[in-house]
Amino acid sequence: MALKIAVLAGGVGAARFLAGLVRVVDPANLTVIGNTGDDLEFYGLYISPDLDTVTYTLAGVAHPEQGWGRAGDSFRVQAELGRFGLPAWFKLGDLDLATHIYRSWRLRQGATLSQVTAEVAKAFGLEVRLLPVSDDPVRTRVRTAEGWVDFQDYFVRLGTEPEVLEVRFEGAQAARPGPGVLEAILGAEAVVLAPSNPIISLGPILAVPGVREALRSTRAKVAGISPIIGGRALKGPADRMLKSLGHEVSAAGVARLFADFLDVWVIDGADAGLSAEIEKLGVRPVVAEAVISDPERAAELARTVLGEVLV
Amino acid sequence: MALKIAVLAGGVGAARFLAGLVRVVDPANLTVIGNTGDDLEFYGLYISPDLDTVTYTLAGVAHPEQGWGRAGDSFRVQAELGRFGLPAWFKLGDLDLATHIYRSWRLRQGATLSQVTAEVAKAFGLEVRLLPVSDDPVRTRVRTAEGWVDFQDYFVRLGTEPEVLEVRFEGAQAARPGPGVLEAILGAEAVVLAPSNPIISLGPILAVPGVREALRSTRAKVAGISPIIGGRALKGPADRMLKSLGHEVSAAGVARLFADFLDVWVIDGADAGLSAEIEKLGVRPVVAEAVISDPERAAELARTVLGEVLV
Repeated sequence: MALKIAVLAGGVGAARFLAGLVRVVDPANLTVIGNTGDDLEFYGLYISPDLDTVTYTLAGVAHPEQGWGRAGDSFRVQAELGRFGLPAWFKLGDLDLATHIYRSWRLRQGATLSQVTAEVAKAFGLEVRLLPVSDDPVRTRVRTAEGWVDFQDYFVRLGTEPEVLEVRFEGAQAARPGPGVLEAILGAEAVVLAPSNPIISLGPILAVPGVREALRSTRAKVAGISPIIGGRALKGPADRMLKSLGHEVSAAGVARLFADFLDVWVIDGADAGLSAEIEKLGVRPVVAEAVISDPERAAELARTVLGEVLV
Repeated sequence: MALKIAVLAGGVGAARFLAGLVRVVDPANLTVIGNTGDDLEFYGLYISPDLDTVTYTLAGVAHPEQGWGRAGDSFRVQAELGRFGLPAWFKLGDLDLATHIYRSWRLRQGATLSQVTAEVAKAFGLEVRLLPVSDDPVRTRVRTAEGWVDFQDYFVRLGTEPEVLEVRFEGAQAARPGPGVLEAILGAEAVVLAPSNPIISLGPILAVPGVREALRSTRAKVAGISPIIGGRALKGPADRMLKSLGHEVSAAGVARLFADFLDVWVIDGADAGLSAEIEKLGVRPVVAEAVISDPERAAELARTVLGEVLV
């Protein structure tokens, strides 16, 4: 298929979906808009975990089990950094570090995150266009009983253990969409929300002024894939987070968060009973096998999604 | 011996001498003033080759043959940086990179080079006090037939191949001596110039305003060890450099460069015939085995030097 597609993507789940999507469509027509709310500085290096996860996964060099980081990576530099008393809770493999050293160096030279992301994608042979949602800093922060913490403190250091009482995206209100972001949404023939945590993976993307408006006004159909199946997140803390933030923990509850721009919502067979509730939101429910077990399964899901938005 | 000693040090030759000196004196009374003219940024990381060579050598973790870098290091990160088209002519091993990542991070946090150098030295268990000659940038540049090049371009990338027509130490005139540098020279009971390239290793140290004056005015005897033996440099391009810059390529020619503050000049037996010429400079020549083949030999040389300045 040669149609133009824009995908809003978080981390591991989105990357696995994209690995299927590129089997179904010409990657050259695919624009991936990535989450930067997870970005952090560690050891003074600028790290974009979600953009890297997409890049590594599409390049076939991601760690197959954990989803993030590089396959076959070693941790020699980080182990040695322990000599200087530096923390190691954010794991940075040697191969992975090369990306961060390169990105940090280019950013300090004055390159934008968009430019560096394109350079990194090219270095890994990606054919899709990968865009950070913004070149301006957007930082997800999370309020727990202990107070506000940076996203990776919550996600990695604290292992998503604390209950999330509030989420904010610092800098988002002043952030401008990155070059090509709104154009990709407005010019697409289909827009897809990859299966991602609706709060902390898609949330920062939607919080950048103009993105949500573009999703509402694009002539393309907007489809999403529920990351909640049978009331549970396939991966990560999305279910607990939805609950503690007062949302319904279901495929319908997530659809409600996006109802203002969503046309099609792909739900698992386990959630077929929620179809009527989703329809009431003005969203067309589509029941499919939504669990992504391998790239072939992801391609199948991508085919289903595209079939529904192109009818 | 518990006397206070200050040593002016370049890279590998100096580090090997220091490895002997710490066997002879209490390292806690030893201040090493290191050359920063070789410092560079590579991949946006701040690298202090001479300071690191001293640190690694005294910590016993230096690469035994090449002198610089870490023993048993690997080059996984740098190999991966090739993916991004980055040059690799300045070799940075994985273990070595940890030092540069730490240093760069601390400098960006606002720490001074002196502070970071002390932290790195402590992390490697050093007992000597290692001071960069200045916290301000001093950058050695070299003029060749092709024009001015950065020091490491000449030294590493071009392999010291081009003839050196002129040397300058950018920033030196505006640089202030680092904390403790002048005090170490003025308060020492002995000052030693380690065997180092007189132009590009000791030159930048002497170019920082106040250092040469302190060497002239200190009540301590100042001794040096000739890096030229039998008219040739034991290591590196010192002999060719002396020649192309119009200096006499001999142990006496080097002594002349330091004659304004030098009291004792240790020369090899091969150069005993130069004693009269050195005496005419107002410097006392001492003939000794000046080739450092191992730490025990370095200790022997250190004992000789100290014996001569403490008479």
